[in-house]
Amino acid sequence: MADKAYLCTPKKTVKLQVFSEISALRSFLAPLRSPSRPIGLVPTMGALHAGHLALIAQSKQHNPLTVASIFVNPTQFNNAADLEKYPRMPEADTAMLQAAGCDVLFCPSVAEMYPVPSALTMDFGNLNRILEGEFRPGHFSGVGLVVAKLFNIVQPARAYFGQKDFQQLMVIRQLVSELCIPVEVMAVPTLREPDGLAMSSRNLRLTPAERAKAPVFYETLQYAQAAIKTKKPWSEIRQEAAMKVAATGFRLEYLALATQPNFQLTENVTDSQPKVLLIAGYAGNVRLIDNLIIE
Amino acid sequence: MADKAYLCTPKKTVKLQVFSEISALRSFLAPLRSPSRPIGLVPTMGALHAGHLALIAQSKQHNPLTVASIFVNPTQFNNAADLEKYPRMPEADTAMLQAAGCDVLFCPSVAEMYPVPSALTMDFGNLNRILEGEFRPGHFSGVGLVVAKLFNIVQPARAYFGQKDFQQLMVIRQLVSELCIPVEVMAVPTLREPDGLAMSSRNLRLTPAERAKAPVFYETLQYAQAAIKTKKPWSEIRQEAAMKVAATGFRLEYLALATQPNFQLTENVTDSQPKVLLIAGYAGNVRLIDNLIIE
Repeated sequence: MADKAYLCTPKKTVKLQVFSEISALRSFLAPLRSPSRPIGLVPTMGALHAGHLALIAQSKQHNPLTVASIFVNPTQFNNAADLEKYPRMPEADTAMLQAAGCDVLFCPSVAEMYPVPSALTMDFGNLNRILEGEFRPGHFSGVGLVVAKLFNIVQPARAYFGQKDFQQLMVIRQLVSELCIPVEVMAVPTLREPDGLAMSSRNLRLTPAERAKAPVFYETLQYAQAAIKTKKPWSEIRQEAAMKVAATGFRLEYLALATQPNFQLTENVTDSQPKVLLIAGYAGNVRLIDNLIIE
Repeated sequence: MADKAYLCTPKKTVKLQVFSEISALRSFLAPLRSPSRPIGLVPTMGALHAGHLALIAQSKQHNPLTVASIFVNPTQFNNAADLEKYPRMPEADTAMLQAAGCDVLFCPSVAEMYPVPSALTMDFGNLNRILEGEFRPGHFSGVGLVVAKLFNIVQPARAYFGQKDFQQLMVIRQLVSELCIPVEVMAVPTLREPDGLAMSSRNLRLTPAERAKAPVFYETLQYAQAAIKTKKPWSEIRQEAAMKVAATGFRLEYLALATQPNFQLTENVTDSQPKVLLIAGYAGNVRLIDNLIIE
């Protein structure tokens, strides 16, 4: 075995190629792209954590070339303070991508992605009106815009998104389907901290005291899942969830139940249609979301 | 000279390849597409005339492979009667494309392009609010949707559009620019009948009496252009234009002046900024549009 290992080509550490200009990235990718050499894209807003690395790992498994993008997209922030405070750590991110074996990093400036202010908005119908669509007006239009841009710049065969942003995933699937974009959208399950908190770049903004109580959102999802199994009425589940969150001093924005795969809000806890539980709330000034697919 | 001609390879008549399914068209095009073999796309709604053939001819000049599409796109019709009455003549269209040397025809059904009703809408800002955007609510969203679909299905290097639909051209340029779509948008000048009427599939719906008077829209544009040169106030020009059209029994919907290239409505006839005159009106039940770039 040792001999065999010795004979193997040592694993090369390929240097991460970094681009900040669209034209340079396109020129680099054009000769590398072919039906037999699909590109995997992992769009991120940086402040990378293990959840992002799981996306990179999946892409590396499926595609000979993986491109990660880091762009804190202003058009998807409905709240200026949230945009300003969004964590940015380009050096650490680059080192993590290099260590993860990512091939290419695209990290454009706002001026590169939006040379003129955007006038195009997208409305995704039902997805625009409920939950994140309702509480973050304009958010999904910005998501659709930047994801369409990234797809057209990188032209990947597959793109990887975390299931933590569940409704965003629905929006991207709708975008791809309605515009016939030749990209396969790959959903990767949410990674969690040992205490259950869904990994998120926004967790970095929590104070130690908030961080200690932040698992309450996931615990509330688990409580609701168990309560649904007992067929407790949804109104009671919702009320108890709100009290559970309030007991920590946090604020529940919504706990909702949506059918799958058509993502319609429902209060029906007795039928057998697949569903997903979704939660959003504020830990201090930090807005957190999470979800749980009901088994 | 005769000998030389004899020695030339006789011009091959290549059979037009016709596809109605997205997957079959994609499979056919995939092995033919390469940076050295760009594809030209000519999106149409059929009822082809010489204006469309000029687009095909331009595409054939620039690209080794030309794809025409024929699809009467329901999402861009704000008026059900207009959709129903839009001329359809698939056999004649196919013969014209074959004779013009077009390589591929894509003529999908509505179910193929919209397997589920579309929920995505696009808003192009200023372009959505004025002229065609104002008088045809939802029109440009449908245009954006179908053009994005066609671009993603065919993945052309260049796409050809007639200048007759001037504001549509602006919308498509905005779509391409804002979504970073890797397609070069090519504008081809309007072709006109000998009496000046802009070629349009909708002209087929005119009665002989309406057809005889239809050049009034182009004549009104020419009158306005001449009047602008004399620096006559825009309000007077507009009033006289309305009288000119009314004299034929037709109805003027708008005569407008827009700056170029940023397409802002203006009434300033004295400054030196490039401009375009745009007109829309009804000849009986048939809505016609035209425009004139001011030299």
